[in-house]
Amino acid sequence: MTGTAPAPFTADDYRARMDRAARQAAGAGLAGLLVAPGPDLVWLTGYTPTAVTERLTLLVLAAGREPVLVVPTLEAPDAEHAPGAPAITLRDWTDGKDPYAVTAALLDADGRFGVSDNAWAMHLLGLQRALPGTSYASLTEALPMLRAVKDAAELDLLAAAGAAADAAFEEIRKVPFAGRRETDVAADLAALLRRFGHSQVDFTIVASGPNGANPHHEIGDRVIERGDMVVLDFGGLKDGYGSDTSRTVHVGEPTDEERRVHDLVREAQEAGFSAVRPGAACQDVDRAARAVIADAGYGEYFIHRTGHGIGVTTHEPPYMIEGEEQPLVPGMCFSVEPGVYLPGRFGVRIEDIVTVTGDGGRRLNNTAREMVTVD
Amino acid sequence: MTGTAPAPFTADDYRARMDRAARQAAGAGLAGLLVAPGPDLVWLTGYTPTAVTERLTLLVLAAGREPVLVVPTLEAPDAEHAPGAPAITLRDWTDGKDPYAVTAALLDADGRFGVSDNAWAMHLLGLQRALPGTSYASLTEALPMLRAVKDAAELDLLAAAGAAADAAFEEIRKVPFAGRRETDVAADLAALLRRFGHSQVDFTIVASGPNGANPHHEIGDRVIERGDMVVLDFGGLKDGYGSDTSRTVHVGEPTDEERRVHDLVREAQEAGFSAVRPGAACQDVDRAARAVIADAGYGEYFIHRTGHGIGVTTHEPPYMIEGEEQPLVPGMCFSVEPGVYLPGRFGVRIEDIVTVTGDGGRRLNNTAREMVTVD
Repeated sequence: MTGTAPAPFTADDYRARMDRAARQAAGAGLAGLLVAPGPDLVWLTGYTPTAVTERLTLLVLAAGREPVLVVPTLEAPDAEHAPGAPAITLRDWTDGKDPYAVTAALLDADGRFGVSDNAWAMHLLGLQRALPGTSYASLTEALPMLRAVKDAAELDLLAAAGAAADAAFEEIRKVPFAGRRETDVAADLAALLRRFGHSQVDFTIVASGPNGANPHHEIGDRVIERGDMVVLDFGGLKDGYGSDTSRTVHVGEPTDEERRVHDLVREAQEAGFSAVRPGAACQDVDRAARAVIADAGYGEYFIHRTGHGIGVTTHEPPYMIEGEEQPLVPGMCFSVEPGVYLPGRFGVRIEDIVTVTGDGGRRLNNTAREMVTVD
Repeated sequence: MTGTAPAPFTADDYRARMDRAARQAAGAGLAGLLVAPGPDLVWLTGYTPTAVTERLTLLVLAAGREPVLVVPTLEAPDAEHAPGAPAITLRDWTDGKDPYAVTAALLDADGRFGVSDNAWAMHLLGLQRALPGTSYASLTEALPMLRAVKDAAELDLLAAAGAAADAAFEEIRKVPFAGRRETDVAADLAALLRRFGHSQVDFTIVASGPNGANPHHEIGDRVIERGDMVVLDFGGLKDGYGSDTSRTVHVGEPTDEERRVHDLVREAQEAGFSAVRPGAACQDVDRAARAVIADAGYGEYFIHRTGHGIGVTTHEPPYMIEGEEQPLVPGMCFSVEPGVYLPGRFGVRIEDIVTVTGDGGRRLNNTAREMVTVD
């Protein structure tokens, strides 16, 4: 419950990130960036308010100007302790004052600004009203790759989070599945992620039998039975950076069809991974994985995109999806996670985090992708 | 980790709430309401997505039309199980499709809409672009009292949450404070809230000695010492409804000044409570509490508003603050929580949840407001 991110970055690191972001914004024709509490603010400043409320907190970045954090007076003492605070001027406002007027005084009255995707609509409307001549684009639209290319320290943290998730999988293989509820296995999985260093568990999907055919089924009271396929998809944050991996296990011996579908997804995952190289488009990764599944006649059962970025969140740009022409750049990190979902029967998903290297890709998850049987 | 709120409401209850909201919107000159995942959606439908992501989920309400929930295809199976789902038409969209076009087809192209405060700016911008003739107001601005007046079942749930918080306070008084870190006492407090039925702990502020002078200090590694004042402010959700109470305790015997400041805050809290009656303005509650503190010469040390509403969240309208002329209505529930904060020294805050009755107010927290000493 501190107001700071646990990642080992200094005020100089944050200053460099804010400077880079402001320059990228200017390069994209923006008058500045408006950054709300959430992953963008964590990445740029290390600051997380103790609670996100209707009270406006907003970082204002513009090329050639000092970063300013508009912050409720009550929260200023916490903000002053953020690791990036030495590189930021605080501008606090008191209950009863108009925070949009305070912010508007920092902005070009007819500028176009990038604003955090998850900034509150209420706050955007307040700014639009205070400065009717301004216009806005979401950060993902304006600067989608702002946080996408990770530096060496970030890659180390993501690799460590991936290794911790792998360690959790090696342990969860050993627990009994048959006769226990999904919620029981999920609790084991969450405890394992924490044991291996995660400070935050974002999801522990345990989708057994027919539940596996709903890619977003999380966990429920269903009792896992011998003969079930079970999709495990789990991750969270370790030292401020994310893990996200999926393996599909089988309780006892699989049928031929189950084995065939699992092999197909494994082949698709391998194809997606093999498509990762600098200069390839994000959609090429999706296409490579999808082609394998479509060619086998299961195309209609792969009902989601192939992957998403990961960093200070477990879900961010770049997206591996048809239509995304963004070229891959060394240092980008994202999931490759094709799946096949047979309604009412079972599902299979295999997911690794992959980072783009100088000449290809490197997986940050490395447990067996062959089908594992559990008890 | 289910997709539903735990509160014991039926599809008919949710249908009635959605109908009332749509009629209030029409009465306010709005073409409809756009409700994003979060407390508004929980209150209107009982639905909480398993994760809030960049994928658009939005409930569209308009008088005389069936409610429609725009939802990612992946999440539709979960949404179908929400308790309010029988009263809603689902309109799902698949990765790669434009969710704003799907939503725009449901909206008047030149209408004015109320939108959840916490809807993502990214999604509001998508709608503004899809339908340039539309305009928007935040729900708190357009219909601030939408969720403010609680019905009998809601009041019972809030009273039960308050009683559970009171039970937690009676137990925390008995634990040792001196020589332990704030984080240790906070962990005890969180465990007690859960023991007494809370499913979610939102905050367990333990602000000792000089930390108490920062109203938003949560917890830290400071070791509590004999002679410290300690502000305890804790709450969360029990059966879907909130608790939030503060008491300030003293480790060992207080000084005369500490006792005097505590008495002053208690008197201010009593004055705020006594100002609660139907037809009084929210600001009257703030003024009544603030006058006591100002008259004693401590006005500059009471640096926040006197209170905030509570319901399916621990922090919502109505706000007890200067300038808020909203009349109090029976069934409204909010905190009355004046404080005095002496920088570098100590702070005192006393907080109860109060509900407006037919002729006054009723406290939902009822532990001693006299200064309690702890060991």
